[in-house]
Amino acid sequence: MRKHHRIHTKKPGLPPGTLISSGFDPAVKATIHITCFNEDSFREYELSSAAELDALPLTDTTCTWIELIGVDLDTMHHLGQIFSIHRLVLEDMLNTNHRPKVEDYGDYLFLLSKSIRQSAPDLYIEQFSLVIGKNYIISFSEMPSNLFEPIRKRLRPPQSKFRSYGTDYLAYALLDIIVDNYFTALEHAGDQLDLLEEQVLLAADPAQIRQIQSLRTDLLFIRRAIWPLRDVLSTLERIDSQLIHPRTRLYYRDISDHIVQIIDAVETFREIVNGLMDIYLSSISNHMNEIMKVLTIISTIFIPLTFLAGIEGMNFKFMPELDWPYGYPALLLFMALISVMMLRFFKKKQWL
Amino acid sequence: MRKHHRIHTKKPGLPPGTLISSGFDPAVKATIHITCFNEDSFREYELSSAAELDALPLTDTTCTWIELIGVDLDTMHHLGQIFSIHRLVLEDMLNTNHRPKVEDYGDYLFLLSKSIRQSAPDLYIEQFSLVIGKNYIISFSEMPSNLFEPIRKRLRPPQSKFRSYGTDYLAYALLDIIVDNYFTALEHAGDQLDLLEEQVLLAADPAQIRQIQSLRTDLLFIRRAIWPLRDVLSTLERIDSQLIHPRTRLYYRDISDHIVQIIDAVETFREIVNGLMDIYLSSISNHMNEIMKVLTIISTIFIPLTFLAGIEGMNFKFMPELDWPYGYPALLLFMALISVMMLRFFKKKQWL
Amino acid sequence: MRKHHRIHTKKPGLPPGTLISSGFDPAVKATIHITCFNEDSFREYELSSAAELDALPLTDTTCTWIELIGVDLDTMHHLGQIFSIHRLVLEDMLNTNHRPKVEDYGDYLFLLSKSIRQSAPDLYIEQFSLVIGKNYIISFSEMPSNLFEPIRKRLRPPQSKFRSYGTDYLAYALLDIIVDNYFTALEHAGDQLDLLEEQVLLAADPAQIRQIQSLRTDLLFIRRAIWPLRDVLSTLERIDSQLIHPRTRLYYRDISDHIVQIIDAVETFREIVNGLMDIYLSSISNHMNEIMKVLTIISTIFIPLTFLAGIEGMNFKFMPELDWPYGYPALLLFMALISVMMLRFFKKKQWL
Amino acid sequence: MRKHHRIHTKKPGLPPGTLISSGFDPAVKATIHITCFNEDSFREYELSSAAELDALPLTDTTCTWIELIGVDLDTMHHLGQIFSIHRLVLEDMLNTNHRPKVEDYGDYLFLLSKSIRQSAPDLYIEQFSLVIGKNYIISFSEMPSNLFEPIRKRLRPPQSKFRSYGTDYLAYALLDIIVDNYFTALEHAGDQLDLLEEQVLLAADPAQIRQIQSLRTDLLFIRRAIWPLRDVLSTLERIDSQLIHPRTRLYYRDISDHIVQIIDAVETFREIVNGLMDIYLSSISNHMNEIMKVLTIISTIFIPLTFLAGIEGMNFKFMPELDWPYGYPALLLFMALISVMMLRFFKKKQWL
Amino acid sequence: MRKHHRIHTKKPGLPPGTLISSGFDPAVKATIHITCFNEDSFREYELSSAAELDALPLTDTTCTWIELIGVDLDTMHHLGQIFSIHRLVLEDMLNTNHRPKVEDYGDYLFLLSKSIRQSAPDLYIEQFSLVIGKNYIISFSEMPSNLFEPIRKRLRPPQSKFRSYGTDYLAYALLDIIVDNYFTALEHAGDQLDLLEEQVLLAADPAQIRQIQSLRTDLLFIRRAIWPLRDVLSTLERIDSQLIHPRTRLYYRDISDHIVQIIDAVETFREIVNGLMDIYLSSISNHMNEIMKVLTIISTIFIPLTFLAGIEGMNFKFMPELDWPYGYPALLLFMALISVMMLRFFKKKQWL
Repeated sequence: MRKHHRIHTKKPGLPPGTLISSGFDPAVKATIHITCFNEDSFREYELSSAAELDALPLTDTTCTWIELIGVDLDTMHHLGQIFSIHRLVLEDMLNTNHRPKVEDYGDYLFLLSKSIRQSAPDLYIEQFSLVIGKNYIISFSEMPSNLFEPIRKRLRPPQSKFRSYGTDYLAYALLDIIVDNYFTALEHAGDQLDLLEEQVLLAADPAQIRQIQSLRTDLLFIRRAIWPLRDVLSTLERIDSQLIHPRTRLYYRDISDHIVQIIDAVETFREIVNGLMDIYLSSISNHMNEIMKVLTIISTIFIPLTFLAGIEGMNFKFMPELDWPYGYPALLLFMALISVMMLRFFKKKQWL
Repeated sequence: MRKHHRIHTKKPGLPPGTLISSGFDPAVKATIHITCFNEDSFREYELSSAAELDALPLTDTTCTWIELIGVDLDTMHHLGQIFSIHRLVLEDMLNTNHRPKVEDYGDYLFLLSKSIRQSAPDLYIEQFSLVIGKNYIISFSEMPSNLFEPIRKRLRPPQSKFRSYGTDYLAYALLDIIVDNYFTALEHAGDQLDLLEEQVLLAADPAQIRQIQSLRTDLLFIRRAIWPLRDVLSTLERIDSQLIHPRTRLYYRDISDHIVQIIDAVETFREIVNGLMDIYLSSISNHMNEIMKVLTIISTIFIPLTFLAGIEGMNFKFMPELDWPYGYPALLLFMALISVMMLRFFKKKQWL
Repeated sequence: MRKHHRIHTKKPGLPPGTLISSGFDPAVKATIHITCFNEDSFREYELSSAAELDALPLTDTTCTWIELIGVDLDTMHHLGQIFSIHRLVLEDMLNTNHRPKVEDYGDYLFLLSKSIRQSAPDLYIEQFSLVIGKNYIISFSEMPSNLFEPIRKRLRPPQSKFRSYGTDYLAYALLDIIVDNYFTALEHAGDQLDLLEEQVLLAADPAQIRQIQSLRTDLLFIRRAIWPLRDVLSTLERIDSQLIHPRTRLYYRDISDHIVQIIDAVETFREIVNGLMDIYLSSISNHMNEIMKVLTIISTIFIPLTFLAGIEGMNFKFMPELDWPYGYPALLLFMALISVMMLRFFKKKQWL
Repeated sequence: MRKHHRIHTKKPGLPPGTLISSGFDPAVKATIHITCFNEDSFREYELSSAAELDALPLTDTTCTWIELIGVDLDTMHHLGQIFSIHRLVLEDMLNTNHRPKVEDYGDYLFLLSKSIRQSAPDLYIEQFSLVIGKNYIISFSEMPSNLFEPIRKRLRPPQSKFRSYGTDYLAYALLDIIVDNYFTALEHAGDQLDLLEEQVLLAADPAQIRQIQSLRTDLLFIRRAIWPLRDVLSTLERIDSQLIHPRTRLYYRDISDHIVQIIDAVETFREIVNGLMDIYLSSISNHMNEIMKVLTIISTIFIPLTFLAGIEGMNFKFMPELDWPYGYPALLLFMALISVMMLRFFKKKQWL
Repeated sequence: MRKHHRIHTKKPGLPPGTLISSGFDPAVKATIHITCFNEDSFREYELSSAAELDALPLTDTTCTWIELIGVDLDTMHHLGQIFSIHRLVLEDMLNTNHRPKVEDYGDYLFLLSKSIRQSAPDLYIEQFSLVIGKNYIISFSEMPSNLFEPIRKRLRPPQSKFRSYGTDYLAYALLDIIVDNYFTALEHAGDQLDLLEEQVLLAADPAQIRQIQSLRTDLLFIRRAIWPLRDVLSTLERIDSQLIHPRTRLYYRDISDHIVQIIDAVETFREIVNGLMDIYLSSISNHMNEIMKVLTIISTIFIPLTFLAGIEGMNFKFMPELDWPYGYPALLLFMALISVMMLRFFKKKQWL
């Protein structure tokens, strides 16, 4: 959810493991997508309630991928019982503010990460969690999306080699897509940055400050989501668990590399955004100087001239120059002279 | 206490272990709440002086929870003698400026942390310390509150599983509530941040600077309270003490996770507040530009016109245009022309 | 010495161990205070020259505390010979710019720290060094003070348990007082900070910048003095030396805790001071806006009016309105109208 | 490519190891330069398509250096098959956004770094990757350049000792040139910095802000390219691989030293650039002060004088001074007096 | 050399170990000073060319100190051959941009550091390198100076104990002088800082910004020179080499202590300089406020008065007040009243 500064509040004093969904959009209807496959077979089911789960032969395949989209406490409870998942895990899945982490529960790994969705101009940071078992995987996304469709596409062809890999490889494929999405968000941020830099250097405009701040906050939140993910992946690379095949570790290292690239880019962008703020401030000051120059030039030229005109407008009886026939043109000439001198002075000062 | 910048001063030269309460509100009346329970029984006592302690059968239950609220030197002394607690521990409990820490004294653990109380618009950071023994726990809070009422509620039902857990679990439950309260404070800070950001982006106002500074100081003090708590919990997770059951360590790790989340949020908020300060400054500068533009537009239009009027107001004898019947309207036309040109100039400069 | 930015210069090329006092106030008269005590006896001597040292029975007590105040090269030499102290140690004692450190010379420990003296409004950072031997302790202070009087007071009563502790405990007592004095300085800084923050938020004043800078420098120097002291104490806690009794280590840890508290407070104060600077700058800008508003309001109201008066002051022959009987009141009315419109404009812009 | 803020986007969901060139300039025609040498022979080939590779006797020499310039997917595939290189390696070579890294694949080392090309005023950061095998080396550069010509020159003479060293030394020679090029870029940046500092101290000009920002971004990108290279080299120094002869490690340490020097210079330059920004801002403020002073001096001198002239221009019937013969000169004298006093006031305030 | 931002560029592609002097002042004439001594004898030679080296009996003394001043490629080559020094060492000695480091080549240690020369107002950072052999030491300085004269003075007396120490102690003596010179530079910087702080607090002046920037750059370069020297000394302290006698390590630790002191002071000074910049900026803003106040006071007092005078200067036929005998004095009185009210307003606003 965009509401960046929102912090989850568990009601203090509740016993641990109480299932409460917090921070989720209640309007999202929960759905369950199930993909069962092994080298020979491939089946897909679309369920809409937890009750339908029991009717399915979930445990007789090499790999069953249960994809939960949106919060449904009943289904969670149900799955928790079927696969005997710890209640603290279920609680963490439902807490949108949890930091990415990975935990080894022996029979399964629990992995929590953040998924990024760029729906211009807004950036959504959503929860994405995985339970990786021996022959099942439970993925949980906050909002519906067709993010994982390419994976199903790669699984459907009967001769797909993908089908022969285990749940650890499926987990890799899912995480790879999650991480690739960060690149998309950063590309968007990079383009905005290019544009903003060009605009701010051209002329500062109060509307830009809003964009700079929004970009800064976006980068801050991407950073907050991606940094702990690095630890998660480096834990996965080295974890001592039968669930992760040594061959798959190479792929996890590949994601690790990508994450470091993302962190690198985020930190670079953050510095550039901070630089933009400086440029913005200096641009405003330059603008102020421009305004002051105009005011000063006009004032310093005309104020003395007006004074002279005022002098000659006085009503003293004895002002000899007033009766002098050439007084008027002489004064105008003198005024022109003063103006020219002033303009030269400003030219010398490089104000013109 | 809100008085953030207050630092405790022990009178230099006093021998160590001298009991002096420092930094506490003397107006708070000390009370003692005692909860004794085991799987079969549950008793509660409300005492108001140390003397009543002796009459109680404190040591014959699985778990005795002695809750001290407010400072009472006599009671402390008394408890120190009953449970043979080191005098340095008692001294630390009474020093409101002490940093969170945990120390293993063999027979008991001493844990010192900070409790946060958000009583809008002020934030109170109070001392909260625990002595965790084999079958007793002493909690010490600075101010009365019903923070721990939910725990007692969970303990009261005869069939409560909670009663069968040891003092380490009770300590977990107490700390969990303390830490959950940080979330409440951060949620409040997050809301204020959202509001302030919106307001500052709209228009800077000197009153905002006070709010920004107050928010900044609050975050600074939350941060100062929470960072050392992380070490405390990670020590508890790994401590080699018979007082902590391995099963409970999982729960301590859960609090650890929450603390990392809080640290994460605090650091993010701190960056956003610093960004707000920049926006505030740029907003003031923008406002200044606005003011200067108005002044400059009015001045540069009217100063030359006034000069022209001044010219024609001079009293020279020989000013032919004054006698020309169309002189007046011609001048007015000329003035209108100048104004239009000026306005075009400002439009081109995008000042209008 | 307050002269913060002073750096000691040894004359380059001198052999190491050459005794030169550098950075000390030469006006301070050196004195020697000697306290000999064991469980049964207690004697005090006040010497004024090194020569008197030989007459004293220094080595037959449990503990001899030789307190040097002010620099006296002769006495140092003398003591160096009596207790066979390394010449590099003596050189370090005389170098006011040395960083706090502790060094194990086998027969004795050499400890160097900084003592803080708050003599409002100035902060003095002075050298304090200790040589801790088996049955003697040499303390060296830069300036006379009654800082250690409470220790003598605790030693004097015949039944004092203090007397039975060794030199390691006496060293603890001395360091405890030194560290407690940092709290006093921080309390003073905290009060100043509270006051300054209130003042700066009210109205910025160039005098404040001087105070902010002074406070900032003070904190910088406290920080510079306290950080290395942390390493000193943590070394003392873990040092493998017969001179430190295991029982005393607990007390050293207590000082360690206090030092961490001080560091914590210093870092917090430093952040608040930096925040103050921002507030100061924004306060000046706000003030500027105030000034500009007044100028702009007055100018934009009266400049057009003056122009109108100038128009009617022209000397054209044919200005019909001048002959119109209601011309004058009509113009005044028109002027009033303009003024009201202007004021409304400023009200809308919230400048009034 | 200069387009700094560009981030590579792999199409999410593609299987790993899919060869796609991303971020490369498609206009660059790919070429292949092959250098085969051993102590006795030296041959060079220039190929333009992958097909010609098969005709070459690549494997019968001590060292075959295959230099790819520009992207050619066919050739890559081909080489991948000939030397059995992992598909992830080929994928990484084609990803211009990859961070420098080194990976040990047993039969060969894969090394990825960034090459810097200074084509004033722009800075290009390009990909440079190496596959270091037992008797072959594959280098891949993004753009054509004669950067490595000196190496070929050193190899051509029949008596060249270079020819007897292995591929690890050739890799050193290539990396040494890559790293030396960073010095060239930094020298250029240093010269610009010298120039800019001089200019900004003289007079701030909005054009400078663009240069400062450009310099800052350049340094940021050099930094981003060089930091991970340090880890690469320190890995190479210590890697446990038969491909690196112990004798060559000394040379790798030499490059390591150069990289640390570069990092040092980059960090120093970055601080100086940040200082420049401060100077720039203060320079603008000074300029503003200059402008305001002129305006204020002119205004405060003439506004009171104009008022006086206005007074005497009033049409009251009874203004005795108007009839006084010396009224006019007396007023002029009075005005001169006021001007002189004003000028003195400004002189005292040091505005003149 | 002062030219701070200069970076050395080796011509890319040259084989390693090619002797090229880079960054050195070619006008400096190279000289060679040789000091041979053992407990019984002491001889000094002043050579001007490499050829004279062969005539000297360099190897029959306890310790031969060959002091090279200025670059002379021939001599270097010659010495390299006599003492069989690695070509990379010679190359490093000739590269003025090299970072301080120490390397163990078995028969000798190679040590590279930076020497600071304060020739007010400029700061010169020069290369100083040492080759420490069993019974010889080669020191190389960039520019002639009498920095090491005190050492020769200590060596000359026949009974000097210094003569009996080995080359490791001589190296200590040389480094001690090099490091002591940093204190001199810092003392100078500290004095400038004191002066500048006083001046900036009094009144900001654009000339100060140049001094602040110069001081900041100086500190940056001292810092860059001293930080790696810390590692050099801590390596020397712990190095496992027969060339360093255990007894000398204590002296190296003494230098280490001094270096940490220098780093401490540099970091403190850097913070103070950054604070100065803030004060400078706030001082400019204050000055601007001063100017604006003067302008605003004069303008807001006289603009309304001038308007009133303008009103009474209009030429309407029917302006009854003009004919009223007391009209003029009444108006003057009214004007005086307005002025007084304005002045009171300013007083209330504390602008006066």
